[in-house]
Amino acid sequence: MLTHEAPATSDTGPERRRGGRARRAAGNIAATGAGLFLRRIPAYKLLGEEALAQLEEQADWILAEIGIDFRGDAEALRLFAAAGCEVKGERVRFQPGQARALCATAPAEFTLHARDPRHSVVLGGDHLVLMPGYGSPFVTDLDRGRRYATIEDFRNFVKLAWMSPWLHHSGGTVCEPTDIPVNKRHFDMVHAHLTLSAKPFMGAVTSVSRAEDSIEMARIAYGADTVAEHAVMQGNINVNSPLVFDETMTGALRSYAAAGQCVCVSPAIFGGAMGPVTPAAVAAQTHAEAMAGIALAQLVRPGCPVVYGSFHNTMSLKSGALTFGTPEGNLVTMALGQLARRLGVPVRSGGGQITAANSPDGQAMQDSASAMWATVMSGANQVWHAAGWLEGGLTMGYEKFVMDLDHCGAMLTLASGMEVSADTLTRESYHEAGPGQNFLSTSHTMRHFATANHMPDIAEAGPYESWVEAGCRTAEERANDRWKAMLAAYEAPPMDPAIAEALDDYVARRKTALPDEWY
Amino acid sequence: MLTHEAPATSDTGPERRRGGRARRAAGNIAATGAGLFLRRIPAYKLLGEEALAQLEEQADWILAEIGIDFRGDAEALRLFAAAGCEVKGERVRFQPGQARALCATAPAEFTLHARDPRHSVVLGGDHLVLMPGYGSPFVTDLDRGRRYATIEDFRNFVKLAWMSPWLHHSGGTVCEPTDIPVNKRHFDMVHAHLTLSAKPFMGAVTSVSRAEDSIEMARIAYGADTVAEHAVMQGNINVNSPLVFDETMTGALRSYAAAGQCVCVSPAIFGGAMGPVTPAAVAAQTHAEAMAGIALAQLVRPGCPVVYGSFHNTMSLKSGALTFGTPEGNLVTMALGQLARRLGVPVRSGGGQITAANSPDGQAMQDSASAMWATVMSGANQVWHAAGWLEGGLTMGYEKFVMDLDHCGAMLTLASGMEVSADTLTRESYHEAGPGQNFLSTSHTMRHFATANHMPDIAEAGPYESWVEAGCRTAEERANDRWKAMLAAYEAPPMDPAIAEALDDYVARRKTALPDEWY
Repeated sequence: MLTHEAPATSDTGPERRRGGRARRAAGNIAATGAGLFLRRIPAYKLLGEEALAQLEEQADWILAEIGIDFRGDAEALRLFAAAGCEVKGERVRFQPGQARALCATAPAEFTLHARDPRHSVVLGGDHLVLMPGYGSPFVTDLDRGRRYATIEDFRNFVKLAWMSPWLHHSGGTVCEPTDIPVNKRHFDMVHAHLTLSAKPFMGAVTSVSRAEDSIEMARIAYGADTVAEHAVMQGNINVNSPLVFDETMTGALRSYAAAGQCVCVSPAIFGGAMGPVTPAAVAAQTHAEAMAGIALAQLVRPGCPVVYGSFHNTMSLKSGALTFGTPEGNLVTMALGQLARRLGVPVRSGGGQITAANSPDGQAMQDSASAMWATVMSGANQVWHAAGWLEGGLTMGYEKFVMDLDHCGAMLTLASGMEVSADTLTRESYHEAGPGQNFLSTSHTMRHFATANHMPDIAEAGPYESWVEAGCRTAEERANDRWKAMLAAYEAPPMDPAIAEALDDYVARRKTALPDEWY
Repeated sequence: MLTHEAPATSDTGPERRRGGRARRAAGNIAATGAGLFLRRIPAYKLLGEEALAQLEEQADWILAEIGIDFRGDAEALRLFAAAGCEVKGERVRFQPGQARALCATAPAEFTLHARDPRHSVVLGGDHLVLMPGYGSPFVTDLDRGRRYATIEDFRNFVKLAWMSPWLHHSGGTVCEPTDIPVNKRHFDMVHAHLTLSAKPFMGAVTSVSRAEDSIEMARIAYGADTVAEHAVMQGNINVNSPLVFDETMTGALRSYAAAGQCVCVSPAIFGGAMGPVTPAAVAAQTHAEAMAGIALAQLVRPGCPVVYGSFHNTMSLKSGALTFGTPEGNLVTMALGQLARRLGVPVRSGGGQITAANSPDGQAMQDSASAMWATVMSGANQVWHAAGWLEGGLTMGYEKFVMDLDHCGAMLTLASGMEVSADTLTRESYHEAGPGQNFLSTSHTMRHFATANHMPDIAEAGPYESWVEAGCRTAEERANDRWKAMLAAYEAPPMDPAIAEALDDYVARRKTALPDEWY
């Protein structure tokens, strides 16, 4: 079972790092890090062979008969034409099986190297990598309410992710630092990931030059040789669904792929808007779009590490609003796990702990927990939005973040499976405590008691009477204590001062060279 | 997909029953009833053959080497001795395989007949039957707070369960009517199930005479011949775990079994107290206890319909408090689904929507949704505590009840699976809306829009700005509207006045014959 006794940080050896006085004051502040996590329960098989083959055939049909637009990127079109695809204008069509064949050079499994090697993760196989939410312009907490996110918020979420043993990855745009010019945000975001955390991270994708800056900063932090030889970062390439890749995204894709860094291709389909309304159609279209993007990455650099991503959601049939954590979305998540495994590439779930709710109330956590179950059962290798998401991604919530962390810990414990062995079955206990007797004082219970069960980090509500006495504090209020205690106990992972200085210099120099752009 | 357009009530034919003016005023008040529900997604296979065989071997070892105490019930001991079990004092031991062999006459699948046949359900196979929480002495709602439950509360929850299309069963002691003497509560409870609902229900088990009263009242409502020939009700036989059945429970078991009514055997194991602390041991011990109880029911009446129950939970290692919806508990739920299917009897999940929380906050719904996922994935046939549970079962919450109902609907939708067909894949839509175009106005979307997605019944939070304008109402507050609207729209299912009178007479006569007992 994965417990808080996870791989430690770089400055304390094999001992769990505790954060000194602040940690003791804060109570159960978790150590940083988690490193590798292997799922030890089977991935769920929602669909049988026939249905999976039908979905694959539909994806092939879409790619052959309808095709994909690669807009404004002559180089991408040239690569597809050279590979034998039919290119007419900006429309690329693939013969049945051709996209799958082009994806064949993508590795089934690869290591994403962290700055601290003990936090390196593997993507693919039975590995599971959890990371925070991505892309929210707003943040919220109980003290200050909802507001535009700033770089301070960004840094706070990087710190919280670094400290959590249940997140294996620092994420990317964990929130938008709106107090920084749009064209300079990536410097501060990548700087925060590289200096405040030592877990793997994602770089910028909003223009080719920002992608190149991100990769250059990784070269400074990891060493250029390391980045040349290993995947150390990911770029998220959103598909402009339905069936369109725009030049910003394919430009960034080509930058990451050329540098041998990981390309994550994320179709984004809201059923009924960017594709048909049925889960089966959304799954098949996602498969078509993901294969097209992965194929491009392989044409740029065969063997380039990729992740088969997805972001698919549903609509309220009452209001037209986007909905998250719904059963239809969860079915798609589970089907995509199967399709990606059959393609032989690591898969990022379109689930995570997602909700349309504005606060982490019962509805929010019902949605989030439900989507997370679908995600883990699907055999996903990487989970974005595992912590913090509110309002369909518009807002990162501080309280939601730590509430989600508790459920991440629970799901990782579940994914560690049930050990059936002579020790866990403990026949000797039944000689110590027979029918009608209490097992609390058996030697087996005594031996296992401290580590037997996963313990959430947010304080328990406790029995009704003491809960009332303490003011009927909801989980959200108790979560408020928790994230503050975590931030108070934060300590940065160590970094060579020369590297830190070189990063600072790079950022300062590049920022000076650019005018401020706010839009 | 199961939708609100479920089987209708007895007085409106195939049309959905809408509750007239009250319903229209209340908005989307659901019709009653659901009737049969078939799971169309595979049950999850957590464990492989080797681990399952080890758990079964451990159960056999417990039954052979340790044995089970049947306390104070000479008839039970006589039946086991006559069947060749080793009986020493009150301890019964089974040779390896013997308990399983005694269970072999139990039906793998049977119908539990409802007073309105359209609400009859099947237990076993791929059928799934959801029902409310059971046994809470307290109730709570946002208006009146937490308080001892009364018969009015009991009736309210029977009404709510009758009205929900997501519950297939009226439950048993949905809350304790504490304003009625202990020895007379069963009259009012069974009366409420029989008159305010027409779904299947559970009778009293707290003494032989109360069990007999429950069965007698069913004979009045269904007709004595019907009850003689069919299972129309269930009795829940709690095991006094570890490894003890007491005479109250085996007495009630024998009453239900003798009458050919369904016996549900529910081991109740809190890991570390009523058994070892490990999930594997809890699963194996549950299996041993369940087999022993089912064996007794089969000895009383071979072929007696049974349900393999369980109630297993975990402890906080910080406070010693009971915890619910935990990953360890969820693993046990999933393993027991497999063990019961191998035994060939219907299985009741120990999950449901359970939590230790005192209010339906984010934590409560995280626990509840998580336990419900484990339950549905486990292939459970019957789910107790699918709605309302708080405080580890001490309290039934009105708001929690309807919040859970929304998730029941979501999980039933999930369990209906993904339809992969030419219609759902809708190739023609891609000719209507190509790359970069919106699918909202395609004929396929138009055709499917109204029914494509499961819609929760509690009002949506809506976009942030309008949510703030409306006072930042949490899901709990919106749920408060929902249960009130449901109760306002309630209409009782019809009953022959002569039967209603006979039931009233029976209750009045029997109550008069008994002194009030309050403890």
